[in-house]
Parts: sequence; C-alpha cells; structure tokens
Amino acid sequence: MPATTPAEILIINPNSSVAVTQGIAAAVAPMTPPGVTFTCVGLPEGPATISTQEDVARGGIGVLEHLRARPRPDAVITACFSDPGLDLLRAEPGAPPAIGCQEAGILSALALADRFGIIALSERSIPRHLRKIAQMGVGSRLADELALPGVSAEASGRDEAVYALVREAAAELGRRGAGAIVLGCAGMAPIRARLAADTGLAVVDPVCAAAAMALAVVQGR
Amino acid sequence: MPATTPAEILIINPNSSVAVTQGIAAAVAPMTPPGVTFTCVGLPEGPATISTQEDVARGGIGVLEHLRARPRPDAVITACFSDPGLDLLRAEPGAPPAIGCQEAGILSALALADRFGIIALSERSIPRHLRKIAQMGVGSRLADELALPGVSAEASGRDEAVYALVREAAAELGRRGAGAIVLGCAGMAPIRARLAADTGLAVVDPVCAAAAMALAVVQGR
Amino acid sequence: MPATTPAEILIINPNSSVAVTQGIAAAVAPMTPPGVTFTCVGLPEGPATISTQEDVARGGIGVLEHLRARPRPDAVITACFSDPGLDLLRAEPGAPPAIGCQEAGILSALALADRFGIIALSERSIPRHLRKIAQMGVGSRLADELALPGVSAEASGRDEAVYALVREAAAELGRRGAGAIVLGCAGMAPIRARLAADTGLAVVDPVCAAAAMALAVVQGR
Amino acid sequence: MPATTPAEILIINPNSSVAVTQGIAAAVAPMTPPGVTFTCVGLPEGPATISTQEDVARGGIGVLEHLRARPRPDAVITACFSDPGLDLLRAEPGAPPAIGCQEAGILSALALADRFGIIALSERSIPRHLRKIAQMGVGSRLADELALPGVSAEASGRDEAVYALVREAAAELGRRGAGAIVLGCAGMAPIRARLAADTGLAVVDPVCAAAAMALAVVQGR
Amino acid sequence: MPATTPAEILIINPNSSVAVTQGIAAAVAPMTPPGVTFTCVGLPEGPATISTQEDVARGGIGVLEHLRARPRPDAVITACFSDPGLDLLRAEPGAPPAIGCQEAGILSALALADRFGIIALSERSIPRHLRKIAQMGVGSRLADELALPGVSAEASGRDEAVYALVREAAAELGRRGAGAIVLGCAGMAPIRARLAADTGLAVVDPVCAAAAMALAVVQGR
Amino acid sequence: MPATTPAEILIINPNSSVAVTQGIAAAVAPMTPPGVTFTCVGLPEGPATISTQEDVARGGIGVLEHLRARPRPDAVITACFSDPGLDLLRAEPGAPPAIGCQEAGILSALALADRFGIIALSERSIPRHLRKIAQMGVGSRLADELALPGVSAEASGRDEAVYALVREAAAELGRRGAGAIVLGCAGMAPIRARLAADTGLAVVDPVCAAAAMALAVVQGR
Repeated sequence: MPATTPAEILIINPNSSVAVTQGIAAAVAPMTPPGVTFTCVGLPEGPATISTQEDVARGGIGVLEHLRARPRPDAVITACFSDPGLDLLRAEPGAPPAIGCQEAGILSALALADRFGIIALSERSIPRHLRKIAQMGVGSRLADELALPGVSAEASGRDEAVYALVREAAAELGRRGAGAIVLGCAGMAPIRARLAADTGLAVVDPVCAAAAMALAVVQGR
Repeated sequence: MPATTPAEILIINPNSSVAVTQGIAAAVAPMTPPGVTFTCVGLPEGPATISTQEDVARGGIGVLEHLRARPRPDAVITACFSDPGLDLLRAEPGAPPAIGCQEAGILSALALADRFGIIALSERSIPRHLRKIAQMGVGSRLADELALPGVSAEASGRDEAVYALVREAAAELGRRGAGAIVLGCAGMAPIRARLAADTGLAVVDPVCAAAAMALAVVQGR
Repeated sequence: MPATTPAEILIINPNSSVAVTQGIAAAVAPMTPPGVTFTCVGLPEGPATISTQEDVARGGIGVLEHLRARPRPDAVITACFSDPGLDLLRAEPGAPPAIGCQEAGILSALALADRFGIIALSERSIPRHLRKIAQMGVGSRLADELALPGVSAEASGRDEAVYALVREAAAELGRRGAGAIVLGCAGMAPIRARLAADTGLAVVDPVCAAAAMALAVVQGR
Repeated sequence: MPATTPAEILIINPNSSVAVTQGIAAAVAPMTPPGVTFTCVGLPEGPATISTQEDVARGGIGVLEHLRARPRPDAVITACFSDPGLDLLRAEPGAPPAIGCQEAGILSALALADRFGIIALSERSIPRHLRKIAQMGVGSRLADELALPGVSAEASGRDEAVYALVREAAAELGRRGAGAIVLGCAGMAPIRARLAADTGLAVVDPVCAAAAMALAVVQGR
Repeated sequence: MPATTPAEILIINPNSSVAVTQGIAAAVAPMTPPGVTFTCVGLPEGPATISTQEDVARGGIGVLEHLRARPRPDAVITACFSDPGLDLLRAEPGAPPAIGCQEAGILSALALADRFGIIALSERSIPRHLRKIAQMGVGSRLADELALPGVSAEASGRDEAVYALVREAAAELGRRGAGAIVLGCAGMAPIRARLAADTGLAVVDPVCAAAAMALAVVQGR
Repeated sequence: MPATTPAEILIINPNSSVAVTQGIAAAVAPMTPPGVTFTCVGLPEGPATISTQEDVARGGIGVLEHLRARPRPDAVITACFSDPGLDLLRAEPGAPPAIGCQEAGILSALALADRFGIIALSERSIPRHLRKIAQMGVGSRLADELALPGVSAEASGRDEAVYALVREAAAELGRRGAGAIVLGCAGMAPIRARLAADTGLAVVDPVCAAAAMALAVVQGR
C-alpha cells in the first residue's frame, strides 16, 4: 500500500527567526497526511532575515551544510522566496528532490490563472525575482510585481493597517492583469485565505505551495 | 485554527471507466490530510477513454454539467491529461478554483528539474499537448514527448512488459535532456515511485500533482 | 489549367443569426474569383451570438456536426473570432483544410505591420484571445487589445455613434503601437475600409482574411 | 457596393527573368475576382535571379524605384522570397500597403498547421530566412528548413526528377514535424497543388499567399 | 607573442560628415593598444546623415563597396546605429569579421544591466531598431526606447540644453527599468562618461562598444 | 582629454591557480591601451579549479570579499566561466561596474554570428550554463554546447592532442549551426586565434571579451 511507508519532508528556513520557522510549521500542519512528517528547521547561524544578495549567497551555503549534517529526508524545501541553496541542493550527490518555494509558488500560481503577480517586501529583491522568472522561462505570464517596503511578513497577519497595504497591492496587481497573487515572502500564510476571499483572486503562499508539491513527490513511496 | 474547516476537493474523471476513477481515488488517498475529502467521480455518460479531439470537447461539456448539478466543492480537478473542461470551469460564475491535471503535472515537473519530458499514450495527442504547452508559455523547458501507442495506463501497473516500455521511454527522455518525466495520462500513479527509483529521474503523476496543488488552495480555509 | 476545377469554400457561422451569415456572404462576394464558390451557412440550432466559453465549446461541436452532415468542401472556415471547432475540424479524418478566422485575421495583420491590436466586443473574451495568441506563438507582436462592451458588430456599420467608438478604439491602439487592427468579431467587414481610411492603419476583417487565405489553398486544384 | 471600385495589386518580381514574371501572372490569374487587376512586372535591370545578399540589397532599391516611377497601385507585393525592398516600401510616404511574399507565405502556413517547414533553393539563403523568422517572432513554430541546391524553381514544374527531389524534401520536413510547407522561392506555384496531394501536407506558394492577402486588403475599397 | 602582429580595425562611417568621422576617431583613440590601428573613414558620396530607410539601404551598399575597394583590414565596424551593410559585409567572401555598432551597443548593455534602454534621435528609427532587437532575440531585456527628435548627436556634446534633454531621457529610461542606456547614434561618445556619472546608469556608446569587441577579435593574431 | 585619466580594471580569478592568473594577464596584455591597467589577481584561499556548484557559491563570496578588501577599481571582471560573485558585485553599494566573463563571452559571440556554441570542460557545468543563458534571454541563438571532460584549459595550449579535441568540438558545433564558438573556461586564450583560423569560425575567449567590454566602460573617464 502506497501510504504505509512514512516519509519526511524537510523544510529549511535559512534565517534565524524562530517565529518564522514556527509560522511555517503552523502553516503546513493542516496539510499533513498521516504518515508524512514536515520537519521545519531554521538556521540559528543565519541572518535574522534574508534581504541582501549576500544573505542569499551565504544562506544558500548554510542550507547545504544543514542538509549534509543530518539524515537524509525524502524531500527538502528551501523556505525563503529567494530560493537560497536550491541549486546547491540539486547538485549535491545523493540529495533528495529539492523544491524551492519561489519556484513552487510561481508555478502553482500558473496552475490557477493566466497571469500572476508577486507582492515583494523589498524593492531591491524584485530584480532578483525577475532574473529567476526569466531563468524559469515563464516571464510571458507575469502581470507585474509590486514591493511593500517596510512591511514584514509577520506583521501582515496581526496588524490590520499592514494587511490593508497587502490587500491593496494584491488588488492593484489584479487590475494589472494578475489572476493569481504569489506572496513573495515566507511567513505570510496566515493571511492567504483571507486575502483570496477579499480580492477574489487566487493567492499562493510559496511555502505551502512547495509543501504541497513535496507531498506529490513522496506519494507512493 | 486553519485546519478546522473541512474542505472537499472534487476530482472529475471525464471518462466512464470505473477502474480509472477507483485508481485515482487510491492514488490520492495517502495524500489526504485530516479534514480534507477528495471526492472522485467518473462520468458514466462519458466515453470509455478520452482519445480524440471530439472526446475532449464533449468531455469538457460533461465536466461542466457535472459541476453544475452538484453542491459546489472547495476546489475542482479535471483528471484527464487533455484538461477537458478546464476553461469552461474557470469561466463558470461562482465556480471554485479549477486545476487541470496536465497543467499541474507539467508545472510540478518544472519545480523538480530544468527540463521535462512527457510520456503520451497516443501519437495523436502529442500535437494537442504541444499546443497547450505553447499556450502555457513553458515550451522552452520541454525536452521532448514520446508516445507509447497501444499501451494503456492501467496495464502499466500490472504488466511487466508494459512497464518496461514505459521505463525505456522515460530513460530515453532522460537521454534527451529531461530531468523530470510527466506521465501523460491519468491512471499511472501506481508506477510513479517505482519509475522514479528505476530511472533516477523525477516522475510526476498529473492527478497527484493536481491533488497536491488543490491542498494548497484549500489550506487555511 | 489551374483555374478550371471549380472549388467550394465553406464558411460556417456558428451562431444562428441570419443577418450575420448574410453579412459574411456580402463581404466575401467581391473577393470571389470565377470558379470559386463561397458557401456561407449559419447554425440554426446555435446561440444568437457566441459570447461565453460554453458557447464556444458547444458551437465547436455544432461546427463539426455540420461539416459531417454535408458533402466535403475544398476548404472550410470557422467564422467566429473564437475559432470554435477549429481543432475539431483539423482532427477530423478526411476533412478539408480548415482555417479559423481569428488565426487568419491575426496572421494577416502580421503581414501588414510590425505590431497589431485587436478590438473585442466583450471584455471577457480578451483572456480567451490572449491564450490563443500565446498558443500561436505571436504574442511578441501584440500591441494591445481593447474591448467595446455593449457594441454589436452589426451596429458598427449603421450607427455613426457606434462607429465613432470603434474608430476611437482603433486610434488608441495605434497610439499604443499597433500598425494593424484586427476586428475581433465576424460581421464588421462593412466598416473595414472606412476605418482604415479614417485611421491610417491597416484594418483586417477576420472573415475576409480567412476567405482570402482559403483562395490560396484552393488555387490550382 | 464594396465590389464596384476597381483595384490594382502590383506584384514586383525583382529579377529580370521574364519567365518568372509570366509564371507569377499565371499563378494568380485564377485567384482574380472581377474588378481586381494583378499587374505583374519584372525589373529588366535586375539580376537574373536573386541569390546573394547583395542581390537582395540592390533588388530592394530597384523595387522602390519601380514603385516611385509609376502610378500608385492599391497594394504592392514583393515577389521574391527574400522580400527585397519590403521595408523600403513600407517607409515610403504615401505608398500603398506592402506585402512581402516570404512573410505572407510563412504566415499563411501558420494558419494551416501547428508547425511549418521551408524548402529553400540555396543553402546560403537559409540564415537570411532564419533571421527574418526571428524578426517576425514566429520561430517557435518552425519545424525546419531544407535546401535543394542546384534546383531551379522553374525546373520543379517540368522535370519529374526535380519534382521528386522537392517532394522528398517536403516529406522529410513532414517527418520533422511540419504540417505545412512553404515553397521558399517565387515560381513554384505550378507544383503547389500536386505537392499537397502527394504529401498530404498543406503547401503554400508564397506569391499566391501574398496575392490572397492583398485581395483582403483591397476588399471593400 | 600575441601582441607582435600589427592589426588594423576599419571603422566605416556611412555618412559624409567629416565631423562625425573625426569624432569617432577621437572616441576610439584612448582605447587603442600598441600595435592596433583604428582606421576611421567616412563615405564622401554618402548622405549627410543616415535617417531614412532608403539611407540605410544605400548606405549599406556604400559600405560594401568601400570595403571591396581597399586592402582587407583585420576587422570592420559599421559606425551607424542602423548597422547599414552589416549583412552585406558578413556575406562577402573573404571579408574580415564584421561588427555592427547597434548590435555591439545593445549586447554590451546586456553585459552591464538586466534591462537596457535606447535613446534614439528620430522617432521613425524606433520601429527599425525594434525589428533588429527582435531579430537579435533580446527583446525580453528591452526596457524602452525614447526618441529626441530634433537633437543632433554632435550638439549633445557642446550644448548644455541639448545635453539636458539627453540626460532627462536617460533618467526616464532608468525609471522605466533600464539599468544601461545605449546611445542610439554614432557621435555621442563625448557625453558617455558624463551621462553615466550624472544618472548613475551604465551608458554605452555603440561605436566604442564595437571598437572594444573588435579588439578582442584581433587579440592574439 | 578622455585618455588622460588613468583607469584600473580588476580581473579576479576566483581560483587559486597562479598559472591561470598569469595566463589571464598574458592574454589581456596586448589589449591594454596606454593609461589603462589590468590588475589580475587570484584567490589563494579559493579552490584549485571551480568545478562544482558549491565551488561557484563559495567562489562568489570570495570574489566579493576580495573587492571589499582593496581600493575600488574602475571596473571589475569575474574571470571564471560560471561568473561566480557577479550578482554579489552588482548588488554591492558603491561597487564599480561588474562584468562576468560568461555573459561577456556569450554576448560577444552574438555580435559575430547568428548562432553560437560553447565548449565546456565539464559535462555537469552545462545545465548551469543553460540556466544562465535562459536567464540572459538569449537561448534562441544557442546552437549547442559540448563538453570535453578530462580536458584542462591549460593543456589545450600546449598539448596537440588536446588541442585537436577542442578543434573537433568546435567544428562539430559549426556543423550544428554555430558561427561563433565561446571557449567555456578562463585560460584558453592562447588557442583562440589559432582555433578561429583552423575552423573558419569566430572564436571568443570569455576573459578577453570581458576585458574588451571593460575598456569601453572606462573609455572617456
């Protein structure tokens, strides 16, 4: 029977924020079928948040080193929207299938609407995202990307004024042609369903999107 | 708490084969978190298999009519690799998010490898798939598509000679540059994990891929 | 001698409007060389107008059934801008070459200018057109598409206020970079030449474009 | 009434071959509706055949000068597969709509099949054609292009051995995925219909394709 | 030793302006390594400036004829932003490597930023540039192109009001996403470094870009 | 006067091989105009060669740290074909223009031929290169990439058998449509000119290509 083999999906948050790691664990909990374990870890030696290109580079090495130092899971997810370390994980001999949450979030949005938009938390991350979208070959389906500088992912779920900013950005992306919105940061899962209901758009949390894809990867093991 | 609201994901197999519908139900069973129900239905009035362009067109209308005739689920999946009815579902006022298994299968493959291949069961379905891939805007990542005429999805799981044909096609797609293989037909989930192990490639069952994406759609309702 | 074999080109209007069918016949009449017959038919059982995705799907089946029920022509045209039934006609064993008026209209515009625009009569048809343009692989040459909700194709030719709306939409598309305008609905041929003269842009009636291409298909039979 | 205004379509063969010019006139004769005149001219001062890049450049200037020296027609066609002078005609103040036969041939093929192939008469013209296809933005639909060095367009219609070479090239392009074949040289119209019948593929003569498009341009004047 | 063989790089300005030719020579002088000679020539029989499509066509033939009438250099550059004659030079038997300054300018900009913009001196040259960009296959990286009608390249370097117009156009392109600006005309090298300093953007003079690439072509001869 | 300000271009070889660094210095020496200094440095703490994805990641951080620890040059080049650290350099506040040799090599090839090929020294570097090419948006112009496993860049210049392997790979790429060959590794400059002469193809050394582009960047400072 496919379901009988237990499977572990490792989710690595490359920053050191315990709150973010706990938020991820809470977000994927209701998606967990019997027999599957989502192991959510942060990197204590990582930065508080991944914001610069250097954070991405150093975070990627941290992700690789974490994987090497533990027993191999059945699938691994990089839970930061810049997908730090994804290429390193994929090139690692013997590593399990690796899923990046940026890639998974964007690809899931493509399954829900003709065109997608991204809400970023930093203006300077947008060129990095656009380079990744070009590399993925899906640029023809991008409606636009908007940044909300000064907004933290965590605040979007507890501060109504912050939520209102996010909601307005999503609505604006909708007016620019997006039918699906990708939340461009790990840690915004708590507002996903509410934002979808408020805007009438599909809304994708990238970590949940990656977690879902990983379930299909371990299906039938 | 996100998990407390029960959610129903409707999977419509547009053909009349009870065996195929049961196979789909078995494939998604181990992916089912508590509180989520996958309702798998076939269309008794549909053809035994969706093979011609006319089957696709008529099947699409059948899918739409089925949705209209029942209580609305929280998400709906068309479980045939030609995605019959997907555009109709998306244009239906008040319909839930609709996921096509072809789109979901291809997009999930893109999350696992640089380039993907497809194993089709019919030579004449390939142009249809290629048109869809062009429409999706992801053609730059297709390695190739191969057909296995005369092979049935169901037989791939119980007949070693048939399985060997599928395995060889997957290996050939790997040699042509594919790092992930999409099984181009609903009903091949039973061989997914084995084929991945035998070839060293990522292997995607399109219905499981769509089911996984739907889990993220209903997450947090 | 190439010209001596008579040829019949069937133009199927998938809606039930006799006025639209007659308008098509009038539009192609001056394009008819000796020996060629354009047979223009409507589908009495079709909807009054093709406006929803469901209309497109059901209209496509109607188009296929009409072709099957009559002697084979030398070429066949689907005369509705959503090209209903085009894929069905092309997949039909023994069917003659099939030309869709959306495809023909867009491709003819590409022969006249670097970039094209489309005037649609319904906002909700635009995503459908954009998916087709993506599938055709010619999206890099689209300037933009504008909808004129509430305008009927037929009215554009007899009501100056309606014509003025169309003219302004064409001029706006010109300002957005379009050098050729595709009239996104069968039935607007009467204003084609006037609109070209008024705007200085190339203007393409999709049915006339398809009719012209069909002439080349039957040339020399 | 649309048909009452006579229209003249000028077809300029930029080489000096009287036989080619006469062949063009014969090819478009059966496509001529009452009231339309196709005026076919060659350039006596042009080369016997357009084969080098320099021929294309000088031929283009010859085409422009010819247009300037005569009364303006209602549409103008450059009848050489390298479309010499097309950009010059389009930039000329007050010039009528200009159609290039390469563009028209390729675009007409796109209306008949998912992918097209080209039969060229010279290996060195292929890079030139590929640059044009890239410029047109339709490269994703090219199956392949094959050259038949040493074959003349004129010979294809009277020499069975030459015709057999063309037929085999078309069939090979079909095996490589082309559903429509563009004859990559003016002057092959006599074999178009036969080649289509022999191969089961759509076959496009570029001059007839351009002539057909021009009919739609002058429709309703 | 690679450096011991002297190399000559021929830069052909296809217009007759002695001032432009001298400006090019001055611009490349500081880029000249020992042993390399940049020979800068104008075409006395050419137009004062290349502005129309016809100028481009006739200029191209002039460029070819100039090359034929002199000893072969080690590399040749067409120093006009429309790259007149580039295809002719490349097709010429025995000709040295040919570099067009439009191509070189754009490609160099791509090495400096994710997206580029162009400042053109004539509105009507923009469609010509866009066709070239499409042909080059790099359109996904164009931010935008702006024209400064009435501005001459030469005036940009001596008239502060003209320079201010150029600076504002560059800044506007920056706001539209360009990280690198290509000066769309030979003869603006004198303002390149100042404009880069003033705007914080990379600024590319196309002739210097082509000259630099030619240095790599003759390296190690 | 433009030439009077001295300029320094820093070339960072991210590996620890003194021979490679010296080879780079020798290659750019003949390209150096008066007043310009190419400062070539290796990273003693780097790996002997950059071959794995991890080498690229760690090398990139080494490149960034090197730049930070020294006076700012006028331009900086990463002299390894994987462009390690390029994104880090570009994101560094106050850093000079940064040029990657992979990008520069490919873009220079695009200025010399319609399609390019790459000779890689490792099979596993090819997917990394292809991802970069996709990110650059120039994939439509890639003919193919071939690997020469077991060949070292340094050996290509002193061992005739190794050179013969490289020559045959270049010729094969030419047969597959490449008109320009990019040497996919720093350190092969010594064979560039000979390989071009032997194959009749344009051959690009990526470091020399980057050095040339940097000359244009510092022109006129």
